[in-house]
Amino acid sequence: MAGRVPLQQLSRASTAAAFPSSFFSQRLPASVVAARSLATAPPPAQSPLGGAEGGKGTAIVLLNMGGPSAVPEVHDFLSRLFADGDLIPLGPLQKYIGPLIARRRAPKIEAQYSIIGGGSPIRRWSELQASETCKLLNKLHPSTAPHKPYVAFRYAAPLTEDTFLQMKADGVRRAVAFTQYPQYSCSTTGSSLNELWRLSKKLDAEGQIEWSVIDRWPTHKGFVEAVARHIEEGLKTYAEEDRGKVVLLFSAHSLPMSVVNRGDPYPAEVAATVYAVMQRLNFKNPYRLVWQSQVGPSPWLGAQTSNTVEEYVKKGQTNLLLIPIAFTSDHIETLHELDLEIIAESKQPGIKRTESLNGDPLFIEALVDIAKTHLESQGRTSIQMALRCPMCKSEKCAEQRKFFTGGK
Amino acid sequence: MAGRVPLQQLSRASTAAAFPSSFFSQRLPASVVAARSLATAPPPAQSPLGGAEGGKGTAIVLLNMGGPSAVPEVHDFLSRLFADGDLIPLGPLQKYIGPLIARRRAPKIEAQYSIIGGGSPIRRWSELQASETCKLLNKLHPSTAPHKPYVAFRYAAPLTEDTFLQMKADGVRRAVAFTQYPQYSCSTTGSSLNELWRLSKKLDAEGQIEWSVIDRWPTHKGFVEAVARHIEEGLKTYAEEDRGKVVLLFSAHSLPMSVVNRGDPYPAEVAATVYAVMQRLNFKNPYRLVWQSQVGPSPWLGAQTSNTVEEYVKKGQTNLLLIPIAFTSDHIETLHELDLEIIAESKQPGIKRTESLNGDPLFIEALVDIAKTHLESQGRTSIQMALRCPMCKSEKCAEQRKFFTGGK
Repeated sequence: MAGRVPLQQLSRASTAAAFPSSFFSQRLPASVVAARSLATAPPPAQSPLGGAEGGKGTAIVLLNMGGPSAVPEVHDFLSRLFADGDLIPLGPLQKYIGPLIARRRAPKIEAQYSIIGGGSPIRRWSELQASETCKLLNKLHPSTAPHKPYVAFRYAAPLTEDTFLQMKADGVRRAVAFTQYPQYSCSTTGSSLNELWRLSKKLDAEGQIEWSVIDRWPTHKGFVEAVARHIEEGLKTYAEEDRGKVVLLFSAHSLPMSVVNRGDPYPAEVAATVYAVMQRLNFKNPYRLVWQSQVGPSPWLGAQTSNTVEEYVKKGQTNLLLIPIAFTSDHIETLHELDLEIIAESKQPGIKRTESLNGDPLFIEALVDIAKTHLESQGRTSIQMALRCPMCKSEKCAEQRKFFTGGK
Repeated sequence: MAGRVPLQQLSRASTAAAFPSSFFSQRLPASVVAARSLATAPPPAQSPLGGAEGGKGTAIVLLNMGGPSAVPEVHDFLSRLFADGDLIPLGPLQKYIGPLIARRRAPKIEAQYSIIGGGSPIRRWSELQASETCKLLNKLHPSTAPHKPYVAFRYAAPLTEDTFLQMKADGVRRAVAFTQYPQYSCSTTGSSLNELWRLSKKLDAEGQIEWSVIDRWPTHKGFVEAVARHIEEGLKTYAEEDRGKVVLLFSAHSLPMSVVNRGDPYPAEVAATVYAVMQRLNFKNPYRLVWQSQVGPSPWLGAQTSNTVEEYVKKGQTNLLLIPIAFTSDHIETLHELDLEIIAESKQPGIKRTESLNGDPLFIEALVDIAKTHLESQGRTSIQMALRCPMCKSEKCAEQRKFFTGGK
């Protein structure tokens, strides 16, 4: 891999626990914890990211969905999430139905965040990833330094709008929007880019900030290597005689079939990640790609993770290693849905989950390499970004793509 | 690639046309024909494949769906196809509903076969592929020679049962079932293996024939290289200034969502092929994976190829190169559905299709390498073959997998 970063350059100290170190072992079944050996607890909250540099250098803006850092933020988080037609298409009545659903679901989701420690760790992981990436980029790609770390979440603080205002105040002139979804979906990266495009029109009509976009990296070698090593770590926790027969269950957030049938590239890119990881592992174990977190009555892409686990157990296949493959940091879909609703509920000691990438130095190294390659290429986006989904009717999406690929 | 075959070893003469050479140019729009430069017309029908060798050597048995070689075979072909619950799940009344659908659809499908020249070329391509593969294997892997070519189709002559009986009569003791579907689906390769397993129980209870299975090869380097070169040939037919903006539309046969949601591995493996081809092409063009040939009212996986082409034309994107990615030889879904129903109907000179792999020596070389690697590995199947789909309820499928992976 070009630009391989010596591991010792990464400040492992910064991944020190912010949550009490006993947290996970108190709440998660031993079988889950057993599969973990890498940095689990997120780092402490940091001082505000970014800093005025009078327009010099490059802002590295990590885009993600985000999650509430504390229980009182849950309702606002859900309100924004269900208001976003790019993520959850509810039709023309979205702005009325969305808040209703958010209000109804809030108590249940608040309880889930309480159980996983009072909030999502995703902000602190993202801030760590951003700042570590920038530190290393300063050394490895000095021509675009200083690199200034920002995080822009779609539904939780730091919200994209607040980050945008901060960047303006900091005098940023060159920015890289770096999606933290490895595989592109119009529901995720597309939604974040639509938001950035709206904010650019609203807050930066004069075009102070020149954007380029890292829009996908489903089979980046370093990313694939990090996932593969977490799987190898997970497999080591099984008895040697069972190890070769453990089923690897790659689990990705599902999509409504209306989005799949529109031609969204996500299912194919997730499959590409899975295949690349299996190639790296020499296909030593049987595996399946399955889909989690369906909500509501409309059809979503399956097979569903939860049903898959149940059915494999019924078939006598009780050694299953779940691998979150479309999110890189822990969030409620790993810490609650996989760990508690699926794994703990199964009461099977052989059903486990791999550690999320979180603060793993190997993963940070991959992020650095992705950013460095992008900066070297001097391209604005991938070639693929310019192509709308075949059935897309969204003029917003068309305009957003023009803005980012044409650099206007 | 290990075992790379010198191209001159492949008998190009055997790909000489059996159909009148003017056939395609008479019937297909010039834009379609323009994208073709490699062997298009299938070879002449050959003398019966296989030969008694007193149990020595290895039978190489190419599995595929097959197609009627002449119009009068269409009805029987459709009857078998709609009787197969592995391919088209019609529920407990399949054996009554299947023949009804077959009878109703026959006139329309007969007309389609008439238009494409009176029958499917798939038998002659398959026989050529089988015999060329065996000739080269005899030179490159003498320890398992002589290699004896067979073709076993699921719904047309040579039917799997007839081939099985021929193999028994030929005294075959060692056979490789070599799927010609690059990506595994329970509807396709699974159905062929179910049929082979049933026949083994019925016709070979004494276990004269020892089977191993090449069950998938979605990203084999030689296969990917052959597809990539056909795309490069196709792109050369566009004006240089348009070439970089041609959208590559990879089109695969769709699956009913009931099969997808059962956990069938096919969609993910097709996506792996597409991604591997795009990597080989350095992602120089925008692309999408789309799905063709849906029938009936139940939901199938999309986006649909036909709608995709229509919608891209509406969006002003009229340079589209269609690439059949899940079948390797021409058949009605390429020669009629893509070439006539979609491409000719579009009346857009920029909408074309890449040549199918058919008798391309580079593709034969890939088949040889896949078979040679399998014979060297001495494994019975891939590790993945042992794993049933999570929602599978078919005991037949469970037994079949036991039979082939355990070699019983």
